[in-house]
Amino acid sequence: KIDGDRLWDSLMDMAKIGPGVAGGNNRQTLTDEDAEGRALFQSWCEAAGCTMGVDTMGNMFATRAGEDPDALPVYMGSHLDTQPTGGKYDGILGVLGGLEVIRSLNDMEIKTKHPIVVTNWTNEEGTRFAPAMLSSGVFAGKHSQDWAYGREDAEGKTFGDELKRIGWVGDEEVGARKMHAMFELHIEQGPILEAEKKDIGVVTHGQGLWWLQCTVTGKDAHTGSTPMNMRVNAGLGMARMTEAAHQIAMAHQPHAVGAVGHCDVYPNSRNVIPGKVVFTVDFRSPDLGKLTSMREQYEVKAKEIAAELGLGLEIEPVGHFDPVTFDEGCVGAVRGAAERLGYSHMDIISGAGHDACWINDVAPTAMIMCPCVDGLSHNEAEEISKDWAAAGTDVLLHAVLETAEI
Amino acid sequence: KIDGDRLWDSLMDMAKIGPGVAGGNNRQTLTDEDAEGRALFQSWCEAAGCTMGVDTMGNMFATRAGEDPDALPVYMGSHLDTQPTGGKYDGILGVLGGLEVIRSLNDMEIKTKHPIVVTNWTNEEGTRFAPAMLSSGVFAGKHSQDWAYGREDAEGKTFGDELKRIGWVGDEEVGARKMHAMFELHIEQGPILEAEKKDIGVVTHGQGLWWLQCTVTGKDAHTGSTPMNMRVNAGLGMARMTEAAHQIAMAHQPHAVGAVGHCDVYPNSRNVIPGKVVFTVDFRSPDLGKLTSMREQYEVKAKEIAAELGLGLEIEPVGHFDPVTFDEGCVGAVRGAAERLGYSHMDIISGAGHDACWINDVAPTAMIMCPCVDGLSHNEAEEISKDWAAAGTDVLLHAVLETAEI
Ligand SMILES: NC(=O)NCCC(=O)O
Ligand SMILES: NC(=O)NCCC(=O)O
Repeated sequence: KIDGDRLWDSLMDMAKIGPGVAGGNNRQTLTDEDAEGRALFQSWCEAAGCTMGVDTMGNMFATRAGEDPDALPVYMGSHLDTQPTGGKYDGILGVLGGLEVIRSLNDMEIKTKHPIVVTNWTNEEGTRFAPAMLSSGVFAGKHSQDWAYGREDAEGKTFGDELKRIGWVGDEEVGARKMHAMFELHIEQGPILEAEKKDIGVVTHGQGLWWLQCTVTGKDAHTGSTPMNMRVNAGLGMARMTEAAHQIAMAHQPHAVGAVGHCDVYPNSRNVIPGKVVFTVDFRSPDLGKLTSMREQYEVKAKEIAAELGLGLEIEPVGHFDPVTFDEGCVGAVRGAAERLGYSHMDIISGAGHDACWINDVAPTAMIMCPCVDGLSHNEAEEISKDWAAAGTDVLLHAVLETAEI
Repeated sequence: KIDGDRLWDSLMDMAKIGPGVAGGNNRQTLTDEDAEGRALFQSWCEAAGCTMGVDTMGNMFATRAGEDPDALPVYMGSHLDTQPTGGKYDGILGVLGGLEVIRSLNDMEIKTKHPIVVTNWTNEEGTRFAPAMLSSGVFAGKHSQDWAYGREDAEGKTFGDELKRIGWVGDEEVGARKMHAMFELHIEQGPILEAEKKDIGVVTHGQGLWWLQCTVTGKDAHTGSTPMNMRVNAGLGMARMTEAAHQIAMAHQPHAVGAVGHCDVYPNSRNVIPGKVVFTVDFRSPDLGKLTSMREQYEVKAKEIAAELGLGLEIEPVGHFDPVTFDEGCVGAVRGAAERLGYSHMDIISGAGHDACWINDVAPTAMIMCPCVDGLSHNEAEEISKDWAAAGTDVLLHAVLETAEI
């Protein structure tokens, strides 16, 4: 078993970097805080005897050597970046849990045939630069690196410039590494495991997603002196499209969700009818038919709303992945490890997107989930127990050991 | 008659300060650009032989002496601050038109019994610091200066600190000046005069207003892994309340308007269900009964929406004035001047709020309006013709001369 106290201490130490305003973290990707978190992780990996490689997307790979020079490595990992008002565990647990596996193997002087690598994937959250899971996506060949480098944040800064600015452009070609397998440990970010009183979620599938960025154009005008019938109110259009996204998700129950999390209003003045709004609809389902249908219905409905109000409308997909089925062998290794260790477990579908979802396309992959309090995530109040973290990491250790061969 | 070319040149010179991104202006109140605009206006006033007084709210008063030392001054003026994406004339025309009146009187060597003063009222727009017409409101005793000094912008900077920072806290006690009368020239900001082909609007009334700032609290949560029935979505609440404000205004037609121009979403991330939104509803009507009824209906409806979605709701009024009836004598002076000068004119109700609306409570007041292209204002594309500006300023000259007595 791993050392649950040591793991917890590392989680708490990492959480000191980029503290939030309410007990969580704001360590968004490619900020100074991200750089500080990376440096701390690197120092820990080196202290654990690993060698660090960094690729041109800033993905970090800390390797513990294996005994067979020809054997492909077994990967673990997740991400160290957070939401603007994020928690201390979303992503971090998967990276520091991987590090704890290596520390425990060192303590126990266990050697493996395959090398073992713990990874920190760049920009998993996708808040600052859409889409989410950007760098695992480039690694898996889903996006070109040039396209990724050109992604812009709200201030117009590009991913490429910011990666350079914080000093984490590595020299490894992205995607050149071959993997024997990959395991990602993550908090559930939903309520099911806690409600079902299970220690471990064996993740068999992941939901698919569409992020539809909508730009609605009306005409800035005075809220007082412009008669109602002369208005071209982009804000009213956004209100109706937000309701439409909600209604469409409700009409696709069960196993479908939809919401608008991001919106920017221009010029955002109390006495100006909005001339432009930009907002993003997030639709998800584990069922490809439902996912596609939600997108299609939304596009039709949004066009209707725009036409009724005389608004311009552009819909740009800024994030997409199909529903994922994880590798049977890797999933079996996770289930077997939980079983052997005596942890209660159940099969589960991931509601969130994860780096593992992309990597699954280029290597046998699976995920391990542990519960989180009230299913709350993407919130500074996100919480887990030390025991939950330790149980998930124990399962990670055993699944990896089976796969990396002693 | 005034010199229309000189007036136009001054308008264009002022527009060079704080240029916008699309041909208009961004010279928001108490910014460095506001300070630069004030300095230019002061230099012009001094060149025209006026003495400048500044009160503790930063209101500027340039006086042209009268012949009777005991006669109260006749005031003209409006504001030099703009919306974030504002036009070159909204407010500016009333200030520089007043200056042009003084320059013309100088040219013609006309002396008046009453002194004549041209005023620049601080923070008329109310975008950076709500409410609008803040400093004429303090002048008229509607708000205390302490309260005004404490108003905060989106970054938490206060009005008082920013006024000090730009160096425009004057030494005159605000509101101590007594006025014989006040005239404000302004662009209509609506479509009526242009449609009716009138040179001059004789403003008899002004609409009343409520600004209701709504803070809706839900629970930040993951857009992917949070089931629909566990969501407390503040953004969905805002969408429904925005629609409600629109429907309520529509149900009070004619002579009523309502919209949401300002909204801020937290944490504003594509994959976070909004945990909090702050937005402001703007309701207006020249009919006090309708104005009150819109506010009341909105508060009931917003509470219903919040209750249905399990959201917290606070509604704070951040701007209010009752409908205004301008002074019969001053309105008559405006109408008479338009008539004598041979300009086509009509009586009109102001759709926007103006400093004159507050001053009307402490001195006989009236307003003169000139058309603007397509009724467009609070938009960088706001436009007027040189002839319209000159006609309005001619009427201002004659109304002021009649009132200030030659
Ligand atoms: N795990 C996680 O929150 N990833 C961010 C991408 C997503 O929104 O699902
Ligand atoms: N004239 C003008 O636009 N004033 C700003 C206050 C308002 O919104 O009416």
